[in-house]
Amino acid sequence: MGGHEIEQLIRLLGRLPGFGPRSARRIALFLLRDPQARLVPLARALERAGDAVKTCSTCGNLDTVDPCHICTDPLRDPSVVCVVETVGDLWALERAGVHRGVYQVLGGTLSPLAGIGPEDLNISPLLERLEQGSVREVILALGATVEGATTMHWLMDKLAFYEGVTVSRVAQGMPVGGALDVLDDGTLAAALGARRPA
Amino acid sequence: MGGHEIEQLIRLLGRLPGFGPRSARRIALFLLRDPQARLVPLARALERAGDAVKTCSTCGNLDTVDPCHICTDPLRDPSVVCVVETVGDLWALERAGVHRGVYQVLGGTLSPLAGIGPEDLNISPLLERLEQGSVREVILALGATVEGATTMHWLMDKLAFYEGVTVSRVAQGMPVGGALDVLDDGTLAAALGARRPA
Repeated sequence: MGGHEIEQLIRLLGRLPGFGPRSARRIALFLLRDPQARLVPLARALERAGDAVKTCSTCGNLDTVDPCHICTDPLRDPSVVCVVETVGDLWALERAGVHRGVYQVLGGTLSPLAGIGPEDLNISPLLERLEQGSVREVILALGATVEGATTMHWLMDKLAFYEGVTVSRVAQGMPVGGALDVLDDGTLAAALGARRPA
Repeated sequence: MGGHEIEQLIRLLGRLPGFGPRSARRIALFLLRDPQARLVPLARALERAGDAVKTCSTCGNLDTVDPCHICTDPLRDPSVVCVVETVGDLWALERAGVHRGVYQVLGGTLSPLAGIGPEDLNISPLLERLEQGSVREVILALGATVEGATTMHWLMDKLAFYEGVTVSRVAQGMPVGGALDVLDDGTLAAALGARRPA
């Protein structure tokens, strides 16, 4: 297939999530067809991002500064902490622009089957903030999965020790713009169970 | 979203074929979650491939040497040239191991709508080989699309000038292992039309 370098590139591309050998070959060919315009800028961007990006020691976000832009933003309310599973979830909330407090990124969910216990989750910075008394609300924005629910209940137990701290969780129900007949049974049940006066 | 470097990486990933902003973010996060194990090796592989890979001046293949390994392989028959649209097609035939001759990669197909004319196709190395009299068969392995058919007929006109050269085309029909009822009408018609005694 033309040289060790091409094969190595295809092998590494094939390890990306959602990639197979086929898509890895397609991307490699796309990049190699015009290296100056496609491959070189991507290689450079990867290198720069790898050099610049660090994990925020306060919240677990990825940024070029530590603490991250969100943790140091004077316009944000540090007393409201939104707990999310991943940096991707944090980005999703930031794109929506719906949370004006700060974050705690757990880096995963409890999963006994996968061997992920409480010690693997990035929770101690939140507990430190709680002990300092600077937090008045913790919003649990975890995924509506078995692991998300397990993690949420474990967190609610832990957070119950801190007096004067409101613990809330994001609502489950119909997605905005969604049609009723395409929803799964679990979402329908949650939406009905959480019904409110019209 | 945490720094110019991350945004730039997501922007470039989003330009890859088959990528959108969503998949670009997913891949960027995957790489940045473990830079040493994921991002750095990929950046290095890209750089090395970009430095090493060139286009074979004989057949248009991508390889680290010019002429490429296929063109210089003494075990291959240089008198049988298989014409393909892209390097990806060449790789597909090589993976199948079904062609023991050499190749000519056109780099595309004739497409008046897209402004791609004969001068944009990499055909002159094949014509040179034909003029030298070193070719006895040209196999046209172009896609079964309108553009592929247009290109094939244009090539057949051009190749008719060379006496003693057999021009053949790959057969159309049922894919091996394919069920009849999932085939499109065009393939069914081609398979029926090209039927042979059982």
